[in-house]
Amino acid sequence: MAQVITLKDVASEAGVHVSTASRALNPETRSVVNDETAGRVLAVAERLGYRPHPLARGLRTNQTLTIGMIVPDLMNPLFPPIYAGAEASLRDKGYSLLIGNDDDDPVKAKAVMAALLERRVDGLILATAHLDFALPAALNQEMVPTVLVNRTTDSMALPAVIGDDDAGIGLVVRHLVGLGHAAIAHVTGPTAVSTGRIRREAFARWMDSEGLAAEPALVVEADAFRTEAGHAACDRLLDSGVSFTAIVAGNDLIALGCYDALTERGLSIPDDVSVTGYNDMTFIDRVNPPLTTVSLPYEQMGAAAAQTLLVMLEFEEWQHDVVDPSAKLQPSLVVRDSTGPAPAG
Amino acid sequence: MAQVITLKDVASEAGVHVSTASRALNPETRSVVNDETAGRVLAVAERLGYRPHPLARGLRTNQTLTIGMIVPDLMNPLFPPIYAGAEASLRDKGYSLLIGNDDDDPVKAKAVMAALLERRVDGLILATAHLDFALPAALNQEMVPTVLVNRTTDSMALPAVIGDDDAGIGLVVRHLVGLGHAAIAHVTGPTAVSTGRIRREAFARWMDSEGLAAEPALVVEADAFRTEAGHAACDRLLDSGVSFTAIVAGNDLIALGCYDALTERGLSIPDDVSVTGYNDMTFIDRVNPPLTTVSLPYEQMGAAAAQTLLVMLEFEEWQHDVVDPSAKLQPSLVVRDSTGPAPAG
Repeated sequence: MAQVITLKDVASEAGVHVSTASRALNPETRSVVNDETAGRVLAVAERLGYRPHPLARGLRTNQTLTIGMIVPDLMNPLFPPIYAGAEASLRDKGYSLLIGNDDDDPVKAKAVMAALLERRVDGLILATAHLDFALPAALNQEMVPTVLVNRTTDSMALPAVIGDDDAGIGLVVRHLVGLGHAAIAHVTGPTAVSTGRIRREAFARWMDSEGLAAEPALVVEADAFRTEAGHAACDRLLDSGVSFTAIVAGNDLIALGCYDALTERGLSIPDDVSVTGYNDMTFIDRVNPPLTTVSLPYEQMGAAAAQTLLVMLEFEEWQHDVVDPSAKLQPSLVVRDSTGPAPAG
Repeated sequence: MAQVITLKDVASEAGVHVSTASRALNPETRSVVNDETAGRVLAVAERLGYRPHPLARGLRTNQTLTIGMIVPDLMNPLFPPIYAGAEASLRDKGYSLLIGNDDDDPVKAKAVMAALLERRVDGLILATAHLDFALPAALNQEMVPTVLVNRTTDSMALPAVIGDDDAGIGLVVRHLVGLGHAAIAHVTGPTAVSTGRIRREAFARWMDSEGLAAEPALVVEADAFRTEAGHAACDRLLDSGVSFTAIVAGNDLIALGCYDALTERGLSIPDDVSVTGYNDMTFIDRVNPPLTTVSLPYEQMGAAAAQTLLVMLEFEEWQHDVVDPSAKLQPSLVVRDSTGPAPAG
């Protein structure tokens, strides 16, 4: 009697990640895998006699063809490209996208998730994970494939499509150092979420590698990734009396809050203080002054999260390790008018 | 045998609109009706022996507690407040919101709508209606309550929660005339949708009432409510050689396109040309120069669309006339730095 060959067996034999094997085997995603690898996977699959599981989710009749997505803030322009990218990819496969909003509140997140599960969504895309987030037991029991997007968790137990925030912060720190800045402040986002914490840690690391100490007094945390929270945090920084010539903001909205706080005190951007953001959100190129920021392909990020979920839905044997955790989307620096040479003296 | 008393009977006897009667009878929406009216409706309901229909949709067991919403452009910052408002109102009642995107394409709209109907949504909110839009036969048959938001149709056969665009254009035209402008151009949105056409008609009417002719050469139509389309339309206006000192743009994105076209030709805003927008979308107060525009309570618009739908879902006997068509949300003018006195000579 023949042994049942799983996707994992094929991946292992071909020496590739499960997600790569899955993409190579699917004619519609094969083009994203390099030809040599795809050829090797197909050869292995043929040799081992691999067949997709007959109970593959795609063949089930009780599917709703609906995917739920939860975002922390419907008004933050960061998210529309992410769910536009996800929606387009899902629509191509006949899926619809349910969007919920949890106001970045873990308690509300559970309620929204419960509401989506009652609607028997086939899968979930979560853009709201806090670092201590764990899937509710109900979600494990019902085997609802779940993918994180933009943020990951401490446990890294769930596949997550995220950007390389360490590299992104490296880009802005080196840009500012190149302009002669040494006293660089960091207004972080909430460090209870990965984007806040990873960027803060990266800031310390990159300052260090540039031979500059990240003084504790120069790092303040905003309560939320929002303009008002950035404004309040920058006020605290200015009130503390510590001196600095540049601010690395945790995201673009926090940067706009810094604009407001600096402007209120008669400080000019970038003549007195340079400011950088993170996300390159829609219209941030048109604010005054246009913001120097870190750009990520967010539509692609949403599409990748959807693709990952589709892979998980396609195979009964999906595993949470279907995403290669080392594959992060690479950021680029967009230099605009909010950064300039460090003021003399 | 007692006659069955309907909501319409109560409304008619109390001399109020069906939607008013419905709100007065629902303890949770009663506060939006004035006390005297609510008292009269309740008295009439008691006297006639009115009881909500036992098959009211809210009591049905086959409901999915899911509402579908279709928007024309997920990346336009106009829509997040609308669906944030709708989502919050629906969530309060245990409903989730499915969001679809049709790229403002009526053919794609039909496909997205079909996908939502397959998911047996309890109701639909459409922000995408073209003027010639009619509900597909399937939608009538299945009696899926549908509410339009932001845009209405020629037939006005569906309830629509919209702004008073005639009043909004009146505000900008009178503002510009007050600044001494006489040669005022209008870069319209697509006139196949109500917001484009109503604003264009209002422009002609208000120019006329101010004693200024809206010269045909001064009115050009953008292909879409998007920046690039506004840029192209403004280029055509500038190429035509007609002279003007102000532009009334069909929406904020078209206004940004006009900014780009004017700036490319070395024209200064507002010293050479004043520009107005429509929507007061998020962050438009931060562009350079900050845009003078028409503001509408879009979150409230989304909430009102959801409330209307909830009323329709609550009563078996709902009718498409549940919304009072004369009740439009009132706009206000937000004057910023993109408008100034007409240049001399």
